[in-house]
Amino acid sequence: MKVGFIGLGIMGTPMAGHLLDAGHTLYVHDIKPVAAELTAKGAIPCPSGAEVAAASEVVITMVPDTPHVAAALFGENGVAAGLGAGKIVVDMSSISPIETKEFAARINALGSDYLDAPVSGGEVGAKAASLTIMVGGPQAAFDTVKPLFDKMGKNVTLVGGNGDGQTTKVANQIIVALTIEAVAEALLFASKAGADPAKVRQALMGGFASSRILEVHGERMINRNFTPGFRIELHQKDLNLALNGAKALNLSLPHTASCQQLFNACAAQGGAQWDHSGLLKALELMANHEVKAV
Amino acid sequence: MKVGFIGLGIMGTPMAGHLLDAGHTLYVHDIKPVAAELTAKGAIPCPSGAEVAAASEVVITMVPDTPHVAAALFGENGVAAGLGAGKIVVDMSSISPIETKEFAARINALGSDYLDAPVSGGEVGAKAASLTIMVGGPQAAFDTVKPLFDKMGKNVTLVGGNGDGQTTKVANQIIVALTIEAVAEALLFASKAGADPAKVRQALMGGFASSRILEVHGERMINRNFTPGFRIELHQKDLNLALNGAKALNLSLPHTASCQQLFNACAAQGGAQWDHSGLLKALELMANHEVKAV
Repeated sequence: MKVGFIGLGIMGTPMAGHLLDAGHTLYVHDIKPVAAELTAKGAIPCPSGAEVAAASEVVITMVPDTPHVAAALFGENGVAAGLGAGKIVVDMSSISPIETKEFAARINALGSDYLDAPVSGGEVGAKAASLTIMVGGPQAAFDTVKPLFDKMGKNVTLVGGNGDGQTTKVANQIIVALTIEAVAEALLFASKAGADPAKVRQALMGGFASSRILEVHGERMINRNFTPGFRIELHQKDLNLALNGAKALNLSLPHTASCQQLFNACAAQGGAQWDHSGLLKALELMANHEVKAV
Repeated sequence: MKVGFIGLGIMGTPMAGHLLDAGHTLYVHDIKPVAAELTAKGAIPCPSGAEVAAASEVVITMVPDTPHVAAALFGENGVAAGLGAGKIVVDMSSISPIETKEFAARINALGSDYLDAPVSGGEVGAKAASLTIMVGGPQAAFDTVKPLFDKMGKNVTLVGGNGDGQTTKVANQIIVALTIEAVAEALLFASKAGADPAKVRQALMGGFASSRILEVHGERMINRNFTPGFRIELHQKDLNLALNGAKALNLSLPHTASCQQLFNACAAQGGAQWDHSGLLKALELMANHEVKAV
């Protein structure tokens, strides 16, 4: 298939690489020079998103945030300028569900389909082609693009219409952040009360308190391993999507709001690059106590 | 073994029944008449905790809250009055970790050992003998009582010294409440943004957002099944232990505090008897929106 790929950063480069490995023809564009590992595999650099779109059947965008998608699609010489009818735009960035619906409507008005298909799994998942991909858009477009998704990820779900993929990603990031906070409060309570947090975590695994976060991030907290993983500054961006969405939708998300403040407190300590399990440190600061083995 | 059992309510009655079934001699006491199902199995009612303690090697208490344990152990004609040296007091109630350490010291001063051994699993777990039992106290006392625990529960863990069992139970209840809140915010966001919460939940299972709470309580929220389960008023009591502990330990638990306020808001709607997943309804009220299938 002739595939366009715009945004070849730490996520996009390995994802595009998997599509090249599968034999697809890739037209690529980025504001930075495209990695040699992609051109060596035959990726064809294009000077603009418009030229990528003109050459491709499916155009994938993988950029940092909502304004970057807006620029890539609708900026000067962007995708929309070269798209025409009968194509599919697939935004795999993690951006606003609400603006996604507007982007989809504008692409539909040009006669092409739109899929929002954000991922979770990070750089590790991108390299291993094990990303979780949460998709919103029409079934037929999903079916066409599914073979491409399957080269980049493992759990690929069509959740609903346009925006629902991004909504699901935001929901995921809300739960992950708030569960990290829950585990942090519990382990800090246990530690400050004099118990061994490692034994407490062990006793809680298998019951109703069990979660992937207690397993993975609970262990990180106990081992004080705050090397990312997933960086706090990225989770701040994702909770910002949740909170802007809550504002737009007239929705109160009290713990999401509070969690963002705790991430901000980490950033104030120089922790924007910590793994998000480092949220524990904001609570530790307030308690004047570090979680540690007894 | 000669076992005393004080507190024969909806939890204590089936737990005592399992010990009778296993052939132990049970001396029992409650402020209410003891259930016929226990006396029919040979349980021996005693007029006071002191007489239970005098007759037994191991004395179990299973009462609602910290003041009830204080009264059962140290009130007039309580356990301490009949205990003497060389016995083991096992408190299986869910009470304050801090006061537990004081109770243990007072029992130790009489020459007997103390175990705090709160449970999770509720009435269902008590009847099925599948309780999770989190124990604090000396290893030797734990080893002596372990055969009794094994008749009442499945996951039995000695976490550490006295108080650590209660601390672990509080940590469990913090995580459970806050994870329910996390799932509620995420599903409410998804629903108000127009996605199908059932499909969102499905897409999130298996990733980092996955938990027993997303599985069980997430499903309850989607099906609007708020029949307990575990009642909000009981979780309010448990978060009260966490918050009183936080005050005593100089510890800030912002989401535990906020969660308690949301439970209070449920109670204000007549929801003290709802399952704790009904916390969703406090958020729904603020959002003027109910989570529902699309």
